[in-house]
Amino acid sequence: MSRRNRYSVPEYVAGIVKNDRQILSRAVTLVESTLPEDQRLAEELVEGVLSFTGNSLRIGVSGVPGVGKSTFIDRFGQLLIERGYRVAVLTVDPSSEAGKGSILGDKTRMEQLSTSPNAFIRPSPSSGILGGVSAKTRECSLLCEAAGYNIILIETIGVGQSETAVKGMVDFFLLLALAGAGDELQGIKKGIMEMADLIVINKADGENQKAVERAKGQLVEALHFFPKKENGWITEVSTCSSLMGVGMESIWNTIESFEEKMKINGFFYKNRALQRVHWMKEQIHLLLEVGFYSDKKMSKEIAQKKSLVQTGGKSALAAARELVEKYLYLNSIKE
Amino acid sequence: MSRRNRYSVPEYVAGIVKNDRQILSRAVTLVESTLPEDQRLAEELVEGVLSFTGNSLRIGVSGVPGVGKSTFIDRFGQLLIERGYRVAVLTVDPSSEAGKGSILGDKTRMEQLSTSPNAFIRPSPSSGILGGVSAKTRECSLLCEAAGYNIILIETIGVGQSETAVKGMVDFFLLLALAGAGDELQGIKKGIMEMADLIVINKADGENQKAVERAKGQLVEALHFFPKKENGWITEVSTCSSLMGVGMESIWNTIESFEEKMKINGFFYKNRALQRVHWMKEQIHLLLEVGFYSDKKMSKEIAQKKSLVQTGGKSALAAARELVEKYLYLNSIKE
Repeated sequence: MSRRNRYSVPEYVAGIVKNDRQILSRAVTLVESTLPEDQRLAEELVEGVLSFTGNSLRIGVSGVPGVGKSTFIDRFGQLLIERGYRVAVLTVDPSSEAGKGSILGDKTRMEQLSTSPNAFIRPSPSSGILGGVSAKTRECSLLCEAAGYNIILIETIGVGQSETAVKGMVDFFLLLALAGAGDELQGIKKGIMEMADLIVINKADGENQKAVERAKGQLVEALHFFPKKENGWITEVSTCSSLMGVGMESIWNTIESFEEKMKINGFFYKNRALQRVHWMKEQIHLLLEVGFYSDKKMSKEIAQKKSLVQTGGKSALAAARELVEKYLYLNSIKE
Repeated sequence: MSRRNRYSVPEYVAGIVKNDRQILSRAVTLVESTLPEDQRLAEELVEGVLSFTGNSLRIGVSGVPGVGKSTFIDRFGQLLIERGYRVAVLTVDPSSEAGKGSILGDKTRMEQLSTSPNAFIRPSPSSGILGGVSAKTRECSLLCEAAGYNIILIETIGVGQSETAVKGMVDFFLLLALAGAGDELQGIKKGIMEMADLIVINKADGENQKAVERAKGQLVEALHFFPKKENGWITEVSTCSSLMGVGMESIWNTIESFEEKMKINGFFYKNRALQRVHWMKEQIHLLLEVGFYSDKKMSKEIAQKKSLVQTGGKSALAAARELVEKYLYLNSIKE
């Protein structure tokens, strides 16, 4: 990020809180930056907005490629805006590369929603570093909350790892599915199904409608065998047609009912407390291990030791100890 | 480990190299110890024996509980000993707790093998810390190699994570399977199947024999659709009866043929070089992140910060940074 685009932390915070979209956009870029000097500023910025956060409902939307996530979010987001909410959409895409973020692509995909002044759509490109995806997305969603977006939709592509990360930062996890040719559900992993608070079978329109209903019946049956969740919630199954805009109200009713129940039984707050601790652990991982491998002062020596270990010229144990000792020495604040 | 059981590093090394089983046993106990003072000594010990290692064939044996791993290893180990090999058996059991290691249980399970002077059987209880399982097992197998065991069998329970760890430390990965009631293979995950160099369908005896043959046919079919391995090896399928001792020679022939081919095309050595680098990375993880969480000087502060973050009294970002800064300061060697 070039110098001229950089504000001071108070300027950023003030701009975000009054929902200056340009400053919010730049703040997200700053948070996603991998430059060490940006990271420190980003941390201060997130610290700065923290007292303005926490007032949104965070919803994860997952599903395999082709299930129609963008079209769903486009329709569902419009319903939310009609109901008076302000909606931020963040996309977690572990396969996209930093710098190649498909901002335009995403906005085009969510054609209607992107034109609304009450929607903010932003893909979070994977930063390429371990743990980077989730940490940055969490921070971006906090920035959006501080800017007054009170529904945060976090879209993730159904490949397993990113779902777990997203589950760790949302209040509600919605899984989109399709009815297969043989009525069965296509390409859903059991682990991801277990995470879901609501499974929505999309494309319930035209000739596909019967297959969707049969798939729904089978899914409801299958869910009986799933272990009961600690929060007492039983995973629900809905159908919708994003194309026709059918089924959106019912989905929102389920989410509202979930929020109400979880706030009454306390699991809403308990979950958020656990997520904060999880965030702390992620951050510790970033600072320690990711920090180690991305430390420019270490890279040459890591490469040297690695090739020595490869050829058998040095033992893995000794190499690891020497590298870590050096890293600790270089990064310790001397008193 | 009590003081009186501890030797100096040269004493350990000398004892291991001349295959003093008592010293080898104590060395394994030392390597598995989680006491910080033992860990440093263990590292020196492993360093000390490294020049005596590398002369064995390392074989992973995996399969779901009930597939008959112990009976298989009992029979297969005997064949190897008849052929003049010296066999060490290490068990990776992520579910067992340290201190509750079923040493007697394992020896009883491998009734015949355990009586041979050319066999060394030792379970590696999970040390309960992240990454601990694999690191310790690797080090134990090096101790066994230094003691002259030239076939190391690493037994692991089919739950996924431990297989990946074991795959990263063996030359050959053997997967045991059972034919199901409907002839299909029971409880094998695709990911684990892809790791296998040889899949052996066990219990090919009595009335089960036909089902085993049908399962074998189906498996061979299924393997056609698996991606080709970089080393050019095509996963083979065998059947055996551990109970009757049938099929063991054929399995050993496959393994010998694998070893020969991989040594000719160079993948045997390439794989070991990669494994050494992997070991270095594991060790870096142990020293950095596992070290952080198991550091006694940190534990009180980690707990304090954690509860502050939980209640929202401190941000996760600030807590993580403060904790890591303290850890780096405490563990840096001051000059």
